[in-house]
Amino acid sequence: MLSALDLARRIESGEITPAAVIDLCAQAIDAREEEIQAFVSLDLAGARRRAEAAGLANRPLRGLPVGVKDIFDTADFPTEYGTPIYAGNRPRGDAALVALIRRAGGIVLGKTVTTELAFLNPSKTHNPHDASRSPGGSSSGSAAAIAAGMLPIAVGSQTGGSVIRPAAYCGVTGFKPSYRLLPTPGLKHFAVYLDTAGLFAAGVADVAFAAAAITGRDLRVDRATIAAPRIAIARTNVWDQASTDMQRALDAAANAATAAGARVTEPAWPAFLTDAFDAHAVIQDYEAFRVLAFEYDQHRELLSPILRDMLDKAAAVTADDYDAARRTTKRARQALAEFMGEIDALLTPSAPSAAPRPDTTGPAIFNRVWTLMGTPCVNVTGLKDASGLPLGVQIVGRFGRDHEALLAAQFLEKAIKVAA
Amino acid sequence: MLSALDLARRIESGEITPAAVIDLCAQAIDAREEEIQAFVSLDLAGARRRAEAAGLANRPLRGLPVGVKDIFDTADFPTEYGTPIYAGNRPRGDAALVALIRRAGGIVLGKTVTTELAFLNPSKTHNPHDASRSPGGSSSGSAAAIAAGMLPIAVGSQTGGSVIRPAAYCGVTGFKPSYRLLPTPGLKHFAVYLDTAGLFAAGVADVAFAAAAITGRDLRVDRATIAAPRIAIARTNVWDQASTDMQRALDAAANAATAAGARVTEPAWPAFLTDAFDAHAVIQDYEAFRVLAFEYDQHRELLSPILRDMLDKAAAVTADDYDAARRTTKRARQALAEFMGEIDALLTPSAPSAAPRPDTTGPAIFNRVWTLMGTPCVNVTGLKDASGLPLGVQIVGRFGRDHEALLAAQFLEKAIKVAA
Repeated sequence: MLSALDLARRIESGEITPAAVIDLCAQAIDAREEEIQAFVSLDLAGARRRAEAAGLANRPLRGLPVGVKDIFDTADFPTEYGTPIYAGNRPRGDAALVALIRRAGGIVLGKTVTTELAFLNPSKTHNPHDASRSPGGSSSGSAAAIAAGMLPIAVGSQTGGSVIRPAAYCGVTGFKPSYRLLPTPGLKHFAVYLDTAGLFAAGVADVAFAAAAITGRDLRVDRATIAAPRIAIARTNVWDQASTDMQRALDAAANAATAAGARVTEPAWPAFLTDAFDAHAVIQDYEAFRVLAFEYDQHRELLSPILRDMLDKAAAVTADDYDAARRTTKRARQALAEFMGEIDALLTPSAPSAAPRPDTTGPAIFNRVWTLMGTPCVNVTGLKDASGLPLGVQIVGRFGRDHEALLAAQFLEKAIKVAA
Repeated sequence: MLSALDLARRIESGEITPAAVIDLCAQAIDAREEEIQAFVSLDLAGARRRAEAAGLANRPLRGLPVGVKDIFDTADFPTEYGTPIYAGNRPRGDAALVALIRRAGGIVLGKTVTTELAFLNPSKTHNPHDASRSPGGSSSGSAAAIAAGMLPIAVGSQTGGSVIRPAAYCGVTGFKPSYRLLPTPGLKHFAVYLDTAGLFAAGVADVAFAAAAITGRDLRVDRATIAAPRIAIARTNVWDQASTDMQRALDAAANAATAAGARVTEPAWPAFLTDAFDAHAVIQDYEAFRVLAFEYDQHRELLSPILRDMLDKAAAVTADDYDAARRTTKRARQALAEFMGEIDALLTPSAPSAAPRPDTTGPAIFNRVWTLMGTPCVNVTGLKDASGLPLGVQIVGRFGRDHEALLAAQFLEKAIKVAA
């Protein structure tokens, strides 16, 4: 994989040029894209032109190439949201996040595959670790492109588990920041209350570098020492749906953190989070039925059966159901802030298992509640199942404490490496 | 003005047809649009075709024509957001709110004038009460079209005071619901944390009818009797910037409410709302500099001086400033909920005065804090200044209690009429 932080440092020192990084991506794309199919569009020639711009090496992203999930508008690439309803669509402007990436000196290399409207219908993308497996979704192409070394940075989005789950399946770092840390205008919405823009990169330090460069915030973790975090294990309400390998992986991660000096506790799973878990589906369904009113009412025949069926059923969710779910959420957010008062991060699976067969993008059962809580989540890599496929564990931080979450994730990533 | 509720009832009873309502709009448009310039595009022929659709009279909006501020995407009208940057832009889909209006049986008659990207640069629209005055902004065309009897329902949006202020200046009812009661996907954002979709109509019962029909929520106020609300007068931190006529109008409204049986109190203006007032500008500036990154970075020369200057200055707002303003907001929202524990609604000016000269859209100083608080706001009509121009007073309800806010506004509207 391409380390964004390492490449940025080498560009900064003059060791390599932004154009040379494009070449590295192009080589990996040549070698693997035919099999992986991570991209819906690519513009290597345009990227090479842009890489010659003066002063790039001094800008926050140092001219690094970025892949953008095709759920975000781009003025210079088609933007189809993974659905034939928008075949050939060319927005007139860039999504805010895309414009911020360009402002920071990033170069958009191409658009990465999204599942249809960022829902559950599997995409064409294959898992780089095993082409007969799903890369996960909905940010399928972004996760796969990082895993295959075709990009150092990629953008995704998460409404249920669309960043953390594909990151786990593809063995890359996924960062779902606090709700709205990264701007969403120009993202094709599914459920506004949940839709969160996120990032993919090789390691925690890479994704933190990218997030810091894009937002201008103090989010980097590549400092000399990181204080040992206070971590609480969260087996959650769906622990019995985690594979034996995943259950072992979580324990391995906890042990590694303990061995590295972290204070690891295991409080009981609080009922308010199970309530919030249930509320997620109500909120997502109610909002999607309204947010996708144009697509559902005008282009029903172009929707996949899985999305159409969901929207058919979502029509029955009432405003009272929705309002009650919003109240449950509000209470849970407050209770979670208290619950985590003495904790820096929760440690929980990123997905129930390693990558599934490609007829599904996998369940988001270990992700939904955190998306609803709006808390920062980081998929941490380094663990494997019995067959050698990546298993992801997740650091969940406190709302608005993204730096602390990234620091805890960096700590854990290193601890897992040391323990391996 | 055309009463949406009255027209809906007459369609329901078979007294008139949706097509006949389009004709009423067309007559007013013929008579006044040349002077007022409320529309950027109109499709009377298309509306007449749609008005023939079977079953329209049974759908919630009864086939009523609706004007949509040109800040919302529409698949069948150009969508230019009031800026040459998007000249000729044709989105592939409808904004969620537009799709919901069509789903409810509304007919989009045309796009109404927005100021440039919904900011402060005055538009071409004139105030129907005095063509030498501003209609207010940024939902200039929507407010003016209602005032001129050209539409029974119009859609707008508010980030500072872009619904309530033009409603006040044009003497129509404006309803800025609780944050996100009406969906915003497909609205061209300015500051996501603030941008709120709203509605215009002739009276409170009309706007409540429209909001109920679009959302399927129990928001109507056309019932036999309305309980007298508990109202608190809020002169706010900028009371000294209200004109003498406006100061008198607020007292007149309070007296009318008291005479009608409302319990009217006047608690001291709490400091946390002045803090929130100040936080609004920080949040709007910080977000706009990011949300409009594409327009600012790629098309700077096409921005108006007033917007360009704002964005130039906004670049200096730091993430720390923004985070502090968000914390101030969070505290103020909690404190406001407590402050209003025994109050149904606040009564406050909608704008400092009647409509100003057309070189400004007027100050949003009586609106910003409520947009930031996310509370429902209704401009209530019926009062005038010494020269006979409309003066608007505002009912501010509790977050999520939109029905109660509309009921209080309906009560006040009637009380003002009785007192007049």
